[in-house]
Amino acid sequence: MKDLRLASLGGRKRTAVKVGDVKIGSGFTVIAGPCAVESEGQIVETAVAVKEAGADLLRGGAFKPRTSPYAFQGLGEEGLKLLQKAKDETGLPIVTEIIDPRDAKLVSDYADALQIGARNMQNFALLKEVGKLEKPVLLKRGLSATIEEWLYCAEYILKEGNPNVIMCERGIRTFEKYTRNTLDLSSVPALKELTHLPVITDPSHGTGRNSLVAPMAMASLAVGADGIIVEVHRKPEESASDRDQTLSIGQFKEMMERIGKLKKGLE
Amino acid sequence: MKDLRLASLGGRKRTAVKVGDVKIGSGFTVIAGPCAVESEGQIVETAVAVKEAGADLLRGGAFKPRTSPYAFQGLGEEGLKLLQKAKDETGLPIVTEIIDPRDAKLVSDYADALQIGARNMQNFALLKEVGKLEKPVLLKRGLSATIEEWLYCAEYILKEGNPNVIMCERGIRTFEKYTRNTLDLSSVPALKELTHLPVITDPSHGTGRNSLVAPMAMASLAVGADGIIVEVHRKPEESASDRDQTLSIGQFKEMMERIGKLKKGLE
Amino acid sequence: MKDLRLASLGGRKRTAVKVGDVKIGSGFTVIAGPCAVESEGQIVETAVAVKEAGADLLRGGAFKPRTSPYAFQGLGEEGLKLLQKAKDETGLPIVTEIIDPRDAKLVSDYADALQIGARNMQNFALLKEVGKLEKPVLLKRGLSATIEEWLYCAEYILKEGNPNVIMCERGIRTFEKYTRNTLDLSSVPALKELTHLPVITDPSHGTGRNSLVAPMAMASLAVGADGIIVEVHRKPEESASDRDQTLSIGQFKEMMERIGKLKKGLE
Amino acid sequence: MKDLRLASLGGRKRTAVKVGDVKIGSGFTVIAGPCAVESEGQIVETAVAVKEAGADLLRGGAFKPRTSPYAFQGLGEEGLKLLQKAKDETGLPIVTEIIDPRDAKLVSDYADALQIGARNMQNFALLKEVGKLEKPVLLKRGLSATIEEWLYCAEYILKEGNPNVIMCERGIRTFEKYTRNTLDLSSVPALKELTHLPVITDPSHGTGRNSLVAPMAMASLAVGADGIIVEVHRKPEESASDRDQTLSIGQFKEMMERIGKLKKGLE
Repeated sequence: MKDLRLASLGGRKRTAVKVGDVKIGSGFTVIAGPCAVESEGQIVETAVAVKEAGADLLRGGAFKPRTSPYAFQGLGEEGLKLLQKAKDETGLPIVTEIIDPRDAKLVSDYADALQIGARNMQNFALLKEVGKLEKPVLLKRGLSATIEEWLYCAEYILKEGNPNVIMCERGIRTFEKYTRNTLDLSSVPALKELTHLPVITDPSHGTGRNSLVAPMAMASLAVGADGIIVEVHRKPEESASDRDQTLSIGQFKEMMERIGKLKKGLE
Repeated sequence: MKDLRLASLGGRKRTAVKVGDVKIGSGFTVIAGPCAVESEGQIVETAVAVKEAGADLLRGGAFKPRTSPYAFQGLGEEGLKLLQKAKDETGLPIVTEIIDPRDAKLVSDYADALQIGARNMQNFALLKEVGKLEKPVLLKRGLSATIEEWLYCAEYILKEGNPNVIMCERGIRTFEKYTRNTLDLSSVPALKELTHLPVITDPSHGTGRNSLVAPMAMASLAVGADGIIVEVHRKPEESASDRDQTLSIGQFKEMMERIGKLKKGLE
Repeated sequence: MKDLRLASLGGRKRTAVKVGDVKIGSGFTVIAGPCAVESEGQIVETAVAVKEAGADLLRGGAFKPRTSPYAFQGLGEEGLKLLQKAKDETGLPIVTEIIDPRDAKLVSDYADALQIGARNMQNFALLKEVGKLEKPVLLKRGLSATIEEWLYCAEYILKEGNPNVIMCERGIRTFEKYTRNTLDLSSVPALKELTHLPVITDPSHGTGRNSLVAPMAMASLAVGADGIIVEVHRKPEESASDRDQTLSIGQFKEMMERIGKLKKGLE
Repeated sequence: MKDLRLASLGGRKRTAVKVGDVKIGSGFTVIAGPCAVESEGQIVETAVAVKEAGADLLRGGAFKPRTSPYAFQGLGEEGLKLLQKAKDETGLPIVTEIIDPRDAKLVSDYADALQIGARNMQNFALLKEVGKLEKPVLLKRGLSATIEEWLYCAEYILKEGNPNVIMCERGIRTFEKYTRNTLDLSSVPALKELTHLPVITDPSHGTGRNSLVAPMAMASLAVGADGIIVEVHRKPEESASDRDQTLSIGQFKEMMERIGKLKKGLE
């Protein structure tokens, strides 16, 4: 980093970001839920199940940035309302994506944390807008962003007055075809050297393969991440998007048990 | 491409997009001007000079997406007004970047074509907004976008009703350090096979080095591009941004002469 | 480059490398022929045809580095003998690949220039061995090599006493899937700034698509390359390897005519 | 993988490869030692220290593939003799690199396992030569190799009759500049799905930064790797190569203690 006066820099005093009652940056936080909110049954049922298995927060997209304009774009405000129901049912705080600065108020009314997706990492208009809020922001790394550029995006938010930024490594684009992306776990200890902000990983998008999610979640814990965000669906084979990388409830439970055991080795 | 019914596909019947009186897709169009509008003297003087050297359109940024929030962010509406003055002086139509969907009307009032930058290629809220206009849109390729993804972004605009999209190859991110990006010239004939939309290149951002702009502009013409967009400044060493890749007026003139000669070999 | 005393550096005084009677680095040299030598009929017939269309040298592999050990590995010494026959018939000097330092004498007995393939760019034992010969060496860029690393490989050859090195840009590996590799044409003017050695391109491997070879050959000429190496086969559909990127005799002729015309625009 | 009959494929029945008395593929094997053998004092002293800290094998290069021909190329046979002394002193089996097929007998006389470096992954002449031996081969992933290509290289060795191949993930080249390479930990569980061969990682080359080695070693264990290979030097600051990524004896000891504790969480 050329500019050492950045508000995001300085790895010594760690920041923990509070989302609802959960402190990200203290312990290992697990955010789980479907790629997209599809129906009340789907989101509530999944929320109940992931909570039971030990998840701390619920994820689910109402506004979906999709490669093709003809693909399912999310339920919009209706999706936000269904997330609210799942929260009422389970008490799990909500993390959901925002893709338009004009939706800042609307999404904030429902969400406990706002997700900025990889494609919008350098959508500076959006960063400035969420920087004016107090809501925590989960900032995903762009597909080909360097760590330095990613930190500057956090800085865009901090500069506007919102100190509640969580960095989320979600895989970078490489030539490898077996995985959807290459989850760069070295970015976790690298960020721990550079910034005081909490850092989580997304092994679902990071690998794009169901079978690789649990091993990479374990590795995320071992490498020092503050948590993970994973895609879980009551019936992955019926999921409207990201089917190949979504865990079933059973797989999620099993992963949570392995994580629980591994934690003891790190104490 | 999986979906062959896309409006952007079909390379046989070529589309030419009219920007002011200039038809992009018919002949070799040259768009030139500074990275950012800095002052009246700077933009008007540069506009007069590039017109004299043979440029067809004027470029210049009023809203600048910058890696750091502390870097110069552009003059905003004031910059648009200065572009208008340069247009009044020279008659050159204006190409300028839009980075916020809320600025659609404002920027459209001044610009003859709206540029979507590489970082915003998959800013779907912005794409949908410019898709509702009739203004031509110059759509840059994202830093790590595949050709397929890029075409889907054009499709986002077309789907909303705006048929006037110009594709702009501006270099992809690789591991090479000598150049700022790697200008993928093979994307030009690839797009010519896939889409009817016009395709131009940006050898300034594509290389990041002043000395490589003219050779890559020549290669762009030879490979079949419909034009180029290049950064030119009356005094590159005083430019507020992109100094290393900006041509002086003299260098631009010399390049235009070489392009003129090369055109004859392609007739 | 950190070390400015390298023998390969200094772009001012250009070196032309003589292969048979052909000077690479003076004019635009065209090397053409099949991926692999398959039979006497195939190589001789192709050689006669490419010569007639204007090729300056004949390419053809006798030792083939293949991804799978079960793929055709080339005819070995028998292939070299067939290349000799094609040379006797047409007078075209021969360029063929060497993949084992123990074959240096054998391959040199037949070839006019030795090709080091992309996968062997940093095979230092091989580089040192060909450095002890006087035969010209066509050194391909590695799949993910920087320009700096590539120049150091040329330096390995020069340091051993062989000054006859030709640099060959053959595409780098990226995430793009439409093309096999991304032909980095900016490396040509970049090398012209850095080194006195001649630089050619390989639009066949660089794109992996038949239809993109001619446009990228044209662009190579316009960007300042000293020549090209292209795959041509009398019957591309029967080629034992690289079928998708191989030109037919007819396509090669047509490309040579377009190149001839373009040259005039560059005079 | 297109060809499912490959000898390397089939992840169910695991192969353990015996190097000296150590079984790689059974437990978590730690290979440690300096980048290059520099002197008797250096290698013996480092060997004694890493053994004491719990290392299972000793690494150290006698033949060094270096980017520049003017950089230290290793002590050659003299280096092999010094490795022998370190082995005599400690009992640690030796892993050392081979870069020339003509050295196969020489290196085999001293080494317990032969390393094929990233740059030589597709040096097929070398792969075939080590395939004719019985010595275990540690096969590093190439800088931009896909998992499929890497497996085909293992297949080159297996096909010649040598079944003792250990896969080693050592990082791939990306655009990220903070780390030297990007250690792709997802390749470990991916390989576990595809092949029965053991898989280790190299967090030293994979990150290029001293401070990231231990976190990535921990993550390697958690993700399911069969071991690691790390660079350790009695005085990293005096190391002739790879200084920035080399652990001191103290750092190595500390890492081994953390690994020991983590193992318990995985039981």
